[in-house]
Amino acid sequence: MNGASLATGQRSLGDPSVTFPLWPPQLRGCPETSTAEIAYPVEVDYAYEDVDTALFAQAPGPDLARWAPLLPPLHAPTLGEGGTPLLELDGLPGVYLKDESRNPTWSHKDRLNRVTVSAAVGAGAPGVVVASSGNHGASAAAYAARAGLPAIVLASAEAPPAVQSFVRAYGAKVLTMPAEDRWPLMRRIKVLTMPAEDRWPLMRRIVDRFGYHPVSNLTVTHTGHPFGAEGYKTIAYELFAQLGRVPAAVFTPTGYAEMLYGVWKGFAELRRLGVAETAPPMYACEPAVGAPHARALATGTPAAIVELGPTGAYGIACTVGGHRGVRAVRDSGGEAVPVTDDELRAAQELLARQGLWQELSGAAGLAGYRRLGREFDGPVVCVGTSSGFKDLETGRERVRLLEDVDVDVSLDDLLRATDA
Amino acid sequence: MNGASLATGQRSLGDPSVTFPLWPPQLRGCPETSTAEIAYPVEVDYAYEDVDTALFAQAPGPDLARWAPLLPPLHAPTLGEGGTPLLELDGLPGVYLKDESRNPTWSHKDRLNRVTVSAAVGAGAPGVVVASSGNHGASAAAYAARAGLPAIVLASAEAPPAVQSFVRAYGAKVLTMPAEDRWPLMRRIKVLTMPAEDRWPLMRRIVDRFGYHPVSNLTVTHTGHPFGAEGYKTIAYELFAQLGRVPAAVFTPTGYAEMLYGVWKGFAELRRLGVAETAPPMYACEPAVGAPHARALATGTPAAIVELGPTGAYGIACTVGGHRGVRAVRDSGGEAVPVTDDELRAAQELLARQGLWQELSGAAGLAGYRRLGREFDGPVVCVGTSSGFKDLETGRERVRLLEDVDVDVSLDDLLRATDA
Repeated sequence: MNGASLATGQRSLGDPSVTFPLWPPQLRGCPETSTAEIAYPVEVDYAYEDVDTALFAQAPGPDLARWAPLLPPLHAPTLGEGGTPLLELDGLPGVYLKDESRNPTWSHKDRLNRVTVSAAVGAGAPGVVVASSGNHGASAAAYAARAGLPAIVLASAEAPPAVQSFVRAYGAKVLTMPAEDRWPLMRRIKVLTMPAEDRWPLMRRIVDRFGYHPVSNLTVTHTGHPFGAEGYKTIAYELFAQLGRVPAAVFTPTGYAEMLYGVWKGFAELRRLGVAETAPPMYACEPAVGAPHARALATGTPAAIVELGPTGAYGIACTVGGHRGVRAVRDSGGEAVPVTDDELRAAQELLARQGLWQELSGAAGLAGYRRLGREFDGPVVCVGTSSGFKDLETGRERVRLLEDVDVDVSLDDLLRATDA
Repeated sequence: MNGASLATGQRSLGDPSVTFPLWPPQLRGCPETSTAEIAYPVEVDYAYEDVDTALFAQAPGPDLARWAPLLPPLHAPTLGEGGTPLLELDGLPGVYLKDESRNPTWSHKDRLNRVTVSAAVGAGAPGVVVASSGNHGASAAAYAARAGLPAIVLASAEAPPAVQSFVRAYGAKVLTMPAEDRWPLMRRIKVLTMPAEDRWPLMRRIVDRFGYHPVSNLTVTHTGHPFGAEGYKTIAYELFAQLGRVPAAVFTPTGYAEMLYGVWKGFAELRRLGVAETAPPMYACEPAVGAPHARALATGTPAAIVELGPTGAYGIACTVGGHRGVRAVRDSGGEAVPVTDDELRAAQELLARQGLWQELSGAAGLAGYRRLGREFDGPVVCVGTSSGFKDLETGRERVRLLEDVDVDVSLDDLLRATDA
């Protein structure tokens, strides 16, 4: 659409002098700098000197292909991802929600999966495999289906009921684990958020034996797919176009921090290319019961593994952090902001009460902004990642039925008779 | 955004010489031409001679305000509705899905509710009331919340579980009827689709006594809100921009036919304004178990009321048709295309297997296109209205758990062990 990819190769985040060709994608982090305790991610490098910055004058819209020069090659077809609205919040002037629930499978993950499934196609893989019981699994299944590739999703029986249907809808082969049988002493929410390796010895087998392309993590601390964060850069490009400037701060729901890093990299590129003069501080908003990035930043380690307490924010509840999140927060001058479930619910309700129904995890950006309580000199963006349809409690409402109502009832009495 | 509304008044579809001022909205159809059997709708008229057709050169994107001159005044704030992607289908070259699941509450209804809640604000109403257990109720609640108006939703306890949560999320007051108690002999799906008047004597009371603005129907055959179909016109404007031409045919899921009429009116306006030379035939795709528009067209009546058999397509299963749908099909040279649940499921699966998960009702456009089996000389658009999250069966999956799997399993054996 706007020319070919200018991607030139892969570069280690453990040591920027360590580079690899663009193909094949390094699916297990950087093999040279990683240790038994810390896995360092690999990212994509570009011929930045060849970028025509007129790229950033275009209007945002669906299909990441409009940003093709600064993405890895897009071998997989689009489902119309990206081009999501930016909405100023009532009662919070200058604070905006970037509504990623408006993507093809109603979450931000579609930006990643357009790119990672493209990598699978480009690598000639016979299929895609992903360990996820939620948005990531469904999104990977949708993009694999669109590309004509089979997909295997390793899921947990503890996923929300509506999400079970969601992941299956796209025709993926779903392997559902009887979680309670295997880890009877674990809290159910933990099962959902264990690293894939612990959950699924099968994952690596499917990769090693059958050649399926993994689009979720395979390493001890999170590295993910080396191309994945590139898809999230487009959020930064869109925000720059929508605001007509760089925001004063960006708050993102943070699990493994792939999106956080991607958005940061996008802004860093705008600055590097001279399109923008500054780049915003990035705030990693993660559930307080775990918060591996807060831990890593506080202790000065490249990435941390933590215990995880119970939380309803299953989409971002991670025991395992990654070095990308640490880098994005540190390099941008931001912070990690742990948020409680009470704070998440309050932010979720604030949004829903103005017409924006986010998944509990999806409200973490706003929850973090409110928790931090800081003034910024310019627009603040909270990324909202996903629709309320994906919550654990969705579909489990207890409905209060209306019995006989006198039609001469007063408005006050009528409203008291409602169930919400 | 692009200037003020050029709306001049309201005009009867029963007799175009019968007109009304723009305010107040005629909420019970045309009072002069309607009879005890047939209610004629009222629509909005414009100063077409004052339209600057440069309007249609702009790129589609979120927020209907970009089409303000050809809409009633937009007093209610946006949630970023519209600007949805158009995707060509795999295996069906030249056939496109207009993916309306990408709206703020993940259905086409947001285009209508931006306009009808604007009418409520413009009329100075103290609140909004809607009878709907699905997309329309949730969308109205979201737009009312965004506008700061209270909303009452008259719902049925038989709505899908996830949709129960959805309608409640936006803080509306929900009155849920114990359907089975009142009509023990009715099939549950019928209860969902009865006209509001039968279901809810309360509806008119809330309108008459408390002054709440109704954004759903109040008449014997469907007339709905006189401003509502205007919001759907923007689908036509977007399609014209996205295709660079008028499509050769448009297939829409059809319940009360408000969207069908709106899309048709949008194309008719493009032709009237000289922007386009033609307007496409419109195909009304409705569940074969009811199909009031097919009945009205076959019998030559202005609108029909039918018996309704069981169907999973609850979003478009209507006993009551409207004159707008009859007019759109007839004036455009289209047809009504009844579709069976088997055909709907096949279309839904065809879409999901390429990454597009539509509600069963939302697949009716494609089901109708396949049912008709006709060749068209140019691009064909099937409107997809809503996400699979809203289906009756969603969240009711029976998951097959994976028991011990030998890690030396073959790929074929592994895939046989999956539950989907």
